[in-house]
Amino acid sequence: MRTNYPLNCWYVAALSDEVGEGLLARRLLDKHVVLYRRASGEVVALEDRCVHRAYPLSEGRLDGDRVVCGYHGFSYNPDGCLADVPSQENVPPGARVPAYPVVETAPFIWIWLGEPRAAALRPPPRVPWYLDGTGWTGSTEVLRVEANYLLLHEHYLDLTDVFVTRPEMVPPDIQQLPPLNEVEISERSVAYTRVTQPSRLAPWESAITGLPEETVAVRREEGTFVSPALHTQHYAIDVIDGKSYELLRIHGFTPESPGATHVFLQLARNYDSAEDSITEYLRIMFHEWAIRNATILETIQRRLDEPGGRRRDINVKADRAAIRARRIAMDMVDDETSRFN
Amino acid sequence: MRTNYPLNCWYVAALSDEVGEGLLARRLLDKHVVLYRRASGEVVALEDRCVHRAYPLSEGRLDGDRVVCGYHGFSYNPDGCLADVPSQENVPPGARVPAYPVVETAPFIWIWLGEPRAAALRPPPRVPWYLDGTGWTGSTEVLRVEANYLLLHEHYLDLTDVFVTRPEMVPPDIQQLPPLNEVEISERSVAYTRVTQPSRLAPWESAITGLPEETVAVRREEGTFVSPALHTQHYAIDVIDGKSYELLRIHGFTPESPGATHVFLQLARNYDSAEDSITEYLRIMFHEWAIRNATILETIQRRLDEPGGRRRDINVKADRAAIRARRIAMDMVDDETSRFN
Amino acid sequence: MRTNYPLNCWYVAALSDEVGEGLLARRLLDKHVVLYRRASGEVVALEDRCVHRAYPLSEGRLDGDRVVCGYHGFSYNPDGCLADVPSQENVPPGARVPAYPVVETAPFIWIWLGEPRAAALRPPPRVPWYLDGTGWTGSTEVLRVEANYLLLHEHYLDLTDVFVTRPEMVPPDIQQLPPLNEVEISERSVAYTRVTQPSRLAPWESAITGLPEETVAVRREEGTFVSPALHTQHYAIDVIDGKSYELLRIHGFTPESPGATHVFLQLARNYDSAEDSITEYLRIMFHEWAIRNATILETIQRRLDEPGGRRRDINVKADRAAIRARRIAMDMVDDETSRFN
Repeated sequence: MRTNYPLNCWYVAALSDEVGEGLLARRLLDKHVVLYRRASGEVVALEDRCVHRAYPLSEGRLDGDRVVCGYHGFSYNPDGCLADVPSQENVPPGARVPAYPVVETAPFIWIWLGEPRAAALRPPPRVPWYLDGTGWTGSTEVLRVEANYLLLHEHYLDLTDVFVTRPEMVPPDIQQLPPLNEVEISERSVAYTRVTQPSRLAPWESAITGLPEETVAVRREEGTFVSPALHTQHYAIDVIDGKSYELLRIHGFTPESPGATHVFLQLARNYDSAEDSITEYLRIMFHEWAIRNATILETIQRRLDEPGGRRRDINVKADRAAIRARRIAMDMVDDETSRFN
Repeated sequence: MRTNYPLNCWYVAALSDEVGEGLLARRLLDKHVVLYRRASGEVVALEDRCVHRAYPLSEGRLDGDRVVCGYHGFSYNPDGCLADVPSQENVPPGARVPAYPVVETAPFIWIWLGEPRAAALRPPPRVPWYLDGTGWTGSTEVLRVEANYLLLHEHYLDLTDVFVTRPEMVPPDIQQLPPLNEVEISERSVAYTRVTQPSRLAPWESAITGLPEETVAVRREEGTFVSPALHTQHYAIDVIDGKSYELLRIHGFTPESPGATHVFLQLARNYDSAEDSITEYLRIMFHEWAIRNATILETIQRRLDEPGGRRRDINVKADRAAIRARRIAMDMVDDETSRFN
Repeated sequence: MRTNYPLNCWYVAALSDEVGEGLLARRLLDKHVVLYRRASGEVVALEDRCVHRAYPLSEGRLDGDRVVCGYHGFSYNPDGCLADVPSQENVPPGARVPAYPVVETAPFIWIWLGEPRAAALRPPPRVPWYLDGTGWTGSTEVLRVEANYLLLHEHYLDLTDVFVTRPEMVPPDIQQLPPLNEVEISERSVAYTRVTQPSRLAPWESAITGLPEETVAVRREEGTFVSPALHTQHYAIDVIDGKSYELLRIHGFTPESPGATHVFLQLARNYDSAEDSITEYLRIMFHEWAIRNATILETIQRRLDEPGGRRRDINVKADRAAIRARRIAMDMVDDETSRFN
């Protein structure tokens, strides 16, 4: 499959709590990476391959801030430089594995796998609305989906499938979603908004707000393709003459390879932060939804991967944001290809 | 693997009783097909892929005579035309999936996956001897064999392997089969006949006729390559100065892909039609035989698929009908390639 | 993967006791071979593919010294000539399968799969030290490792990994192995020797000699790349002012394909030959070690097989023998390619 993700982009490598005391192996943009923390807590990301015989460093062990290969014991400093070869006194000069820039903004650990000098020019994207210490609370999850990352972006930028795949989630007085109000935020991102007509609450909305199902509210929905690495969805239940209940679903989409994607999911809400039962309700509901979506996208990916499977689709109006997002990603890829090759 | 099956040919898509109230997904000639019945009972065959995002229609549901995609709810008429897009009022003009001509002649549902205009020119093949309502009775079965369809044709056009693979089926006074009397019926089919010398009955022949094993009979065997889609075998036990017991084994061979074949097996006999125990005896016996043959052919296919595995075989006299059948099929393929490409 | 093993070389096809009364199928240098014994006990090796329809002869049966194909009953003499076709009186003239030269030197059965006329020019390699009837005793084992055969050679020609992978095997007073004394024996083989400083015994050395762990000894180690097919390792525990305990680990490495290797392991010692408990102790210890090594090499092979995985390694001093062995093997391959292609 042709690579369709840009390299010069910050991607989520892991959730903060995935990198603990040991070594975490993860394949990101078709590269093998090993992640660990120094004694100081700072995250290190190195190519997961000993320079000697290609054995994965993640099969070895940590010795202080160094990684020790599990085959012949070669050890590496956090900057990737080979520091010790046990069978001899000297170290071959200049021997090293690539070290990748990393920025931790909990709950995400961001990595830069592109041209090293370009990393400092752009910071990892920030999630709209969501800022630490402003009262948002929620849960996180990691999934691996055997589908290209753009299928995931496209899926989450057009939620009209919910009437078919999860009809029980649609508020009872809504028969059809109003059309998208697409807003291009910049040349590298795309967002849509949608405000629904007033409706009583769906059972899940009643459960997470504690309001009776007869309560009438409008919903404001905003989906954003922040970058090829990040999708956010903001969903506000605005009770008529009442309070506003806001939910955030933040998706880090990181290609493992052209055919598989790591999904780093963060759920958050801005109310009743002490109510663990609401956190748990949302966690289970969105987990089940994510699994259902993954199954659909994996089925589509298998079909696209068959000989002759990559035919032209027909698009409809609801696909406008998705099409724009794909174009942005492909432009970034073309841009890299012409600049670096 | 190079495609070695003609497209312009009626193939069996399913047994009649496989298409019931729901949607049946089947891969035929490397195409994904979804089969279902209209309320009237008529069978519909569509390409199993929504025009929107390539999701299989067979993962959706029926709504009257329409198929509704399980992703965004696009629905299709039995002629393949897109009839509804729930997220908007209009339907993109001209959007449709291919619909394939289908003819049901129980117990087989035939499909035409080639050039659409050519379908009407030729009807599906008719099975010699076997006509509805003339007293034949029996059973059916569907198997999937991971071998090219021509390996199956060749196997069933030369039954001399039975001395090695199923010696217990050979009548006790027969040490060697008489040579084939090959008869070319037309330029597109081939048949052989063989009449054995008189022999007492094999145990299975005794079981299915109710005659003692000392009974002496000759066997008339006729194997026919009716088309690339159909093989028939007629086996008559003619008791000396007695009755004739006739069996039919009808094989629909439909390539799923170049490396796998759907086998639609129909067994029939023209006597004791009310005796279910004979039906069951024959069903089990031929099922076990079909499984044994499938195992052999799958082993051969795996060897042929290895690099360098496709070497020239040595042929012997018993292969005459098989070689002729392969040549007919390859001529049909060449003919199509030169006409349509 | 490019083939990197010479064809004109004697390889181990099987252990003597693997070829008993039946047919043994084995893939060697990417060829399918069937092995069996004549009534006289002599081993026969034929291509494992009937000339008629490519069915493996190993799926058939023996009839005296002949192999009978399990499909249509074609039978072959030990020289590979087709001897009988049951469905006709004559045999197609000249029909045969390749027969391969075989030499049995227990516990190994050697095979020559290269240019037939060249087989007689060179005998199979002889194992240094090890000669029948000179008091060596031990055990044998067959393993299949999913790694290229050169990864195995290289692994066993540099044992400095033992400090990392099996530290409990290192004698307690040895912190670092002395450097290799490499000795090139001929243009087609390479050997290294190493003598350690005196040390007390490791627990396993104490167990297999019956000596207390306080006993002080030096170790003489010699590793030899005898040919691309054979690696030997000699390990002597020379007790200071005492006896010498010698161990041999003999590895037949036979490529099944470029990505997998049959390992024929023979362990031997030259003392206490009646002590079965020592034989068993060594068998289990080296079995576990071989499995651990196989796991490492299979991990490396999977990495090398990925797109872009075959990058240049950095070598260190301990790799000298391994690098030399690889060069010998590649020179033999290049030599064949230019001579025969």
